[in-house]
Amino acid sequence: MFNTVSVIGGDLRQLTLAEELVKDGYDVIIYGFTKEINTDDIPQTHDLKRALSADIVILPVPVSFDNVHINAPFSDEEPTIEDTAESINPLSIVFGGRISDHLSARLTARGIKHRDYMKRDELAIRNAIPTAEGAIELAISETPITVHGSKCLVLGYGKVGKILSRFLDGLGAQTYVQARKYADLALIEGHGCYPLTPNEVRSRIGEFDIIFNTVPSLILDKDVLTKINKDSLIIDLASKPGGVDFGTAKELGLRVIWALSLPGRVAPVTSGKIIKDTITNILSELEV
Amino acid sequence: MFNTVSVIGGDLRQLTLAEELVKDGYDVIIYGFTKEINTDDIPQTHDLKRALSADIVILPVPVSFDNVHINAPFSDEEPTIEDTAESINPLSIVFGGRISDHLSARLTARGIKHRDYMKRDELAIRNAIPTAEGAIELAISETPITVHGSKCLVLGYGKVGKILSRFLDGLGAQTYVQARKYADLALIEGHGCYPLTPNEVRSRIGEFDIIFNTVPSLILDKDVLTKINKDSLIIDLASKPGGVDFGTAKELGLRVIWALSLPGRVAPVTSGKIIKDTITNILSELEV
Amino acid sequence: MFNTVSVIGGDLRQLTLAEELVKDGYDVIIYGFTKEINTDDIPQTHDLKRALSADIVILPVPVSFDNVHINAPFSDEEPTIEDTAESINPLSIVFGGRISDHLSARLTARGIKHRDYMKRDELAIRNAIPTAEGAIELAISETPITVHGSKCLVLGYGKVGKILSRFLDGLGAQTYVQARKYADLALIEGHGCYPLTPNEVRSRIGEFDIIFNTVPSLILDKDVLTKINKDSLIIDLASKPGGVDFGTAKELGLRVIWALSLPGRVAPVTSGKIIKDTITNILSELEV
Amino acid sequence: MFNTVSVIGGDLRQLTLAEELVKDGYDVIIYGFTKEINTDDIPQTHDLKRALSADIVILPVPVSFDNVHINAPFSDEEPTIEDTAESINPLSIVFGGRISDHLSARLTARGIKHRDYMKRDELAIRNAIPTAEGAIELAISETPITVHGSKCLVLGYGKVGKILSRFLDGLGAQTYVQARKYADLALIEGHGCYPLTPNEVRSRIGEFDIIFNTVPSLILDKDVLTKINKDSLIIDLASKPGGVDFGTAKELGLRVIWALSLPGRVAPVTSGKIIKDTITNILSELEV
Repeated sequence: MFNTVSVIGGDLRQLTLAEELVKDGYDVIIYGFTKEINTDDIPQTHDLKRALSADIVILPVPVSFDNVHINAPFSDEEPTIEDTAESINPLSIVFGGRISDHLSARLTARGIKHRDYMKRDELAIRNAIPTAEGAIELAISETPITVHGSKCLVLGYGKVGKILSRFLDGLGAQTYVQARKYADLALIEGHGCYPLTPNEVRSRIGEFDIIFNTVPSLILDKDVLTKINKDSLIIDLASKPGGVDFGTAKELGLRVIWALSLPGRVAPVTSGKIIKDTITNILSELEV
Repeated sequence: MFNTVSVIGGDLRQLTLAEELVKDGYDVIIYGFTKEINTDDIPQTHDLKRALSADIVILPVPVSFDNVHINAPFSDEEPTIEDTAESINPLSIVFGGRISDHLSARLTARGIKHRDYMKRDELAIRNAIPTAEGAIELAISETPITVHGSKCLVLGYGKVGKILSRFLDGLGAQTYVQARKYADLALIEGHGCYPLTPNEVRSRIGEFDIIFNTVPSLILDKDVLTKINKDSLIIDLASKPGGVDFGTAKELGLRVIWALSLPGRVAPVTSGKIIKDTITNILSELEV
Repeated sequence: MFNTVSVIGGDLRQLTLAEELVKDGYDVIIYGFTKEINTDDIPQTHDLKRALSADIVILPVPVSFDNVHINAPFSDEEPTIEDTAESINPLSIVFGGRISDHLSARLTARGIKHRDYMKRDELAIRNAIPTAEGAIELAISETPITVHGSKCLVLGYGKVGKILSRFLDGLGAQTYVQARKYADLALIEGHGCYPLTPNEVRSRIGEFDIIFNTVPSLILDKDVLTKINKDSLIIDLASKPGGVDFGTAKELGLRVIWALSLPGRVAPVTSGKIIKDTITNILSELEV
Repeated sequence: MFNTVSVIGGDLRQLTLAEELVKDGYDVIIYGFTKEINTDDIPQTHDLKRALSADIVILPVPVSFDNVHINAPFSDEEPTIEDTAESINPLSIVFGGRISDHLSARLTARGIKHRDYMKRDELAIRNAIPTAEGAIELAISETPITVHGSKCLVLGYGKVGKILSRFLDGLGAQTYVQARKYADLALIEGHGCYPLTPNEVRSRIGEFDIIFNTVPSLILDKDVLTKINKDSLIIDLASKPGGVDFGTAKELGLRVIWALSLPGRVAPVTSGKIIKDTITNILSELEV
């Protein structure tokens, strides 16, 4: 029943997603790519209305950068959110990445079922892998030392902290991880890394060659930043506000890289597959 | 203020705990060991009342095996729970491992603060390490094959499942882990193991050489057991009811080892240190 | 042409070897096991002459313990080396583990091709895996601490040293390895362990909880032994003379375990497969 | 006696080397850097003769790119090999990286002791670490998939192959390694990777996402290249002739990256320390 899918806008992730859905037997159509792009035997449409009539409509991540247009960097068309919200088949299920409150309200008003795949836990965890790889890439290329043997600190032991600390350990870095809870500190030790409490981090922060932040709150404040070694590199992986007082860091001459959206940049094909699996999980939960 | 401690009964774990507390500057006395046991310059008493007058009274794990006597295998005396509950200094803080509801009620009735260190999360997580090592030891000694290269299945990805799967991977086993949640399945993959859903386990259970259960509910029921290879070894690490239908397993001629209390058996000194750290954590939370 | 095989004497390793050869299409017969032992549909003979007429004759490891009889612990017969050497079909190829100079000379005199599979490099390397697992098992069961977090020293970075240090690292031990050559020291570091020169070992030997020797020469002499911590465990994995001055160790009250023939004890089935693969490699080199 | 050192030309590696020698108590002078470069309190000279009068003269790696001038990218001067060879203090010991036969002959003719640190085994092995990290960086940045979970093939199990395969395994790649010798194949398996013989590589080459060559001989010839998946990435780490038929690869539309001199590019500070340690080793062997 639910077997026509349209994949709208986005980048290589969305093309991969479309290919994977074809492999699963769905009847897929693509909208929002120029004719020049070879979409591997998946039909394209340039008719937005037609695209929006599918059983399943998949919007990109993010759905929009400017809250006006659908994010479609490879398209000549400029589809708007407004047109999209209005024309979607009311019986469709809509998927998107970082759906705005505004769009969500619009869809709800029209009674259209929709889900934000970026809010799913399994996507966030699987994205931790390309995020950690992107961080490793930066650590290798942006320091004049090897990661192997270097003294690394990971702030936070959530999804990204867990995977990143494992990868650093796998490359032979001296891997320290900060956490608050006793249980996490014990788990860090069990996984072969060195656990540090926030207080220990405060007093030992000057020892580290590379500091990775994964926590979206201001851990690296003025007080801590002043103790960091000038040769250190700080890589901030936390979203939105980030975890670094950038102004102070700049004044102090510290090198900070704010690395966002690593999965799409480092591994768009893998990211596309992760999005696809997440959508499949949601569909199976919806018993569609 | 709170600096006299008495350590009552138990085994090598309690002696280690006593030594560690001495190193931290506490004034420690031991009760419940025969004079023949060399307690490394820590004074022993054979006067229960005197022992129970300390600021901090530490009972063993378990506090009692028979609900009548304090567990004191190296003692000539046979202190009872009754006498102990009655004679403890009402201003003491009492620690114990698996304190019974009965004893807890008695202490509460007398207004005595008490804590069960076995219920603490950081103890359970740190105990996962000796538990996993004990399981590894069994896997090496009780199978005619090497763990390296063998096909291992870990049921459950909690405290023990996390550490055990890491150790198996570290020895080069083909390590599969069962979990229910998408998030756990993703984390398992991120940690270099193969994730399996319960359904996949059901259909592939016949492939495994060694099966470790860490979940205290009946996963290995009759239906699953019949599909297990006769050469397999099942190691059940789950407490109380266990996760294996032992009767059926026996009928089918399957080899099952129910491995309980591994930390105390495999690594009593490490276990004693873990108990000591846990007690220290509790004391610091109590701001004593 | 070369397709009848007889497997003579030995233990579970030889039975596994026989089974594996059957799977490869060989026509296998077993000699030297009592009728009570179920040999899984592989025919047994109790006629030594008949067994010795096969194209390929496989003797156990070791061929003999007493230089008089063939090692056949599960047999009622007591075949002698003398009878065996005399009766082997002169066109056979003979395989054995630790063939004595005497037997080798006898076979050569009769013009019989023979090979000692225990002298093969690939067998020694693959045996390093069960040897290392056996050492890990001892380290877990014979110390009151966890291997995880303990300070371990591996003397020698040959076949066993390489695998053992990897396994220790995989369990989260602080793994130090002694080597002489700069190249090995660098490789040890590259593999995530701490390299030590012999001089560094001499001055730091007192720090270690568990010391594994893999070098068949006297490294742990009187001078070094006196510096070792009394709580340490020494596990000697080196063959023949071993690497420990046992007399002095005993006088000093040090705990030493001399762990020989671990592969056959810890993993007889895996060992049997390793022997089988080694024989197959030799046969293919002989272009038989 | 031998305590004045001059460090001549080169890049950040040579500056690091100079700093490290100062820490060891040597009296160091630098030649071949512009005044603008802050050399951290190490004196510079712009007088080549003076520089060449030191007890120990350290030339860069490579000593020269054009066989005429000393490699000195940060210098305004253009010192020639000719002038250098002529003016070196005959009692000096000369170190250099990839010393040409011509320069070596000139130095020998003048009776000057000289050593090529790039020919040392411990340098080559320690350089395997930054080489492997550089390869990992390329694998992350130049493929649209994550290295984790990807199917990687490492051709060769020498210095670089050993470290690279460990790092790939540490990131969770499915790591296959080709080797010829049975002993190496066994060691690969022992280290948790999948061993492949050259024949197996030939038949399975089409399966891999990323292929790393470490062998300086033509393994990836026309015949093999035609079987490689068009989406694969080939990273050639082998020096001089390389191991890939680049012409054919290009015709076939395969992506090949020939990655040379990774240590100097990826980790110049670590590389400088490695050179310093190597020179120290040589000096101690010379008993200087």
